[in-house]
Amino acid sequence: MNPVIGILGGMGPGATVDAMQKLIRHTPASKDQEHIPTIAVSIPDIPDRTACLLNHSASPLAKMIEYLHLLENAGATCIIMPCNTAHYWFAELKRHSRVEMLSIIDAACQQVQAQRLQHVAILATTATVQGGIYQQALAGQQVRSTLPDAAQQEAVMRSIYAYKAGDEDAARALLLPVVATLQQRGVEKIILACTELPLILAPEVQASPGHYLDATEALIRQTVDWYYRHQPSSPLAA
Amino acid sequence: MNPVIGILGGMGPGATVDAMQKLIRHTPASKDQEHIPTIAVSIPDIPDRTACLLNHSASPLAKMIEYLHLLENAGATCIIMPCNTAHYWFAELKRHSRVEMLSIIDAACQQVQAQRLQHVAILATTATVQGGIYQQALAGQQVRSTLPDAAQQEAVMRSIYAYKAGDEDAARALLLPVVATLQQRGVEKIILACTELPLILAPEVQASPGHYLDATEALIRQTVDWYYRHQPSSPLAA
Repeated sequence: MNPVIGILGGMGPGATVDAMQKLIRHTPASKDQEHIPTIAVSIPDIPDRTACLLNHSASPLAKMIEYLHLLENAGATCIIMPCNTAHYWFAELKRHSRVEMLSIIDAACQQVQAQRLQHVAILATTATVQGGIYQQALAGQQVRSTLPDAAQQEAVMRSIYAYKAGDEDAARALLLPVVATLQQRGVEKIILACTELPLILAPEVQASPGHYLDATEALIRQTVDWYYRHQPSSPLAA
Repeated sequence: MNPVIGILGGMGPGATVDAMQKLIRHTPASKDQEHIPTIAVSIPDIPDRTACLLNHSASPLAKMIEYLHLLENAGATCIIMPCNTAHYWFAELKRHSRVEMLSIIDAACQQVQAQRLQHVAILATTATVQGGIYQQALAGQQVRSTLPDAAQQEAVMRSIYAYKAGDEDAARALLLPVVATLQQRGVEKIILACTELPLILAPEVQASPGHYLDATEALIRQTVDWYYRHQPSSPLAA
């Protein structure tokens, strides 16, 4: 069976497209036919992940499982989810999955280790921050992590929702002071641990790529590696 | 059944992502859940469309039908194909399809009519140009169409393949003189009738949007219209 990447997307749609764009950029293809086969489901009726975790509103899990199976039935052999907050349910989804799944949290934390970072900031949704997934993984690697204070975390969340509502300017204006404060606190890099953040901060990341660790990009690099290791014709095939 | 847009993509992968990006931009959504449900298949092992039509190499039709059925089985209720050259097989694909399909050629030509243009240039693959699909449709609307000469058409084709090979700079350098020549020939607009062209000419289109008619964007506008007309709750529902 040829490897096919499945993208469980729509959380949000812009982040799905960003992941697909990065998959193209990181693939060493010289023509259409050499690109990585991909099926993306971006059916955004999945209930809001942050609202569920913070306010106990409708759970996104049933819809995520439905679209996971849709991808499997369509032929995906490895599934990724360009949404950090959704990884709260990653272990549960993995139990329901018949195919490989790669975690964006693991991919980002492996990058922290590969780059030998010792002090990073975590920029994420309030649900991801309160769930502590990144903090625990980084503590296990003896990496110090710094978070925005409560008022700035509130601004991060408003920025993400502004972006999802199509207001890119408001999203950036809310986020830039938070970035400046974190940088003043002596972190080596800021982990962009919500898939809307590399979109909101695109000009800053382009100007100073060394200041950020983009979790989406970490996931995509790992996805490209996975693909070439699982090509039937590859000398790297697992 | 809720309307779901299926994107028969991978021709090329960059054009697929561009179509998805434009679908997001043209949707009046204020949160993730209001975006248009989309399933995209970008499995780029579909044989080269232009090579088939000009050199009688392998036909892409069987693979296109396979991925069309994949989209139908996954739940797509309206299928679009962000590749102008592939529309040579549009009628054949439509015969194999159980669901609605929207044509990028029809969408672009309807835009020409809506904008009351009388003289346009067609910038497309050599296969699209030689197949005459655009010229015939436009002649039927009493619209005059101008094409690059043979040497410049060759440059257009090299530009498209350079872009597909990841060389954006070479692609632009090859295309800009063709655009300049067409503009000197007094056309009102240049139809970007290959889905790689709005990507190659992104800076030019952003600087002078009125000089171009982007076929991908025309298709996406029609797709958004179709979606809202087929929403069960819509007052516009057909």
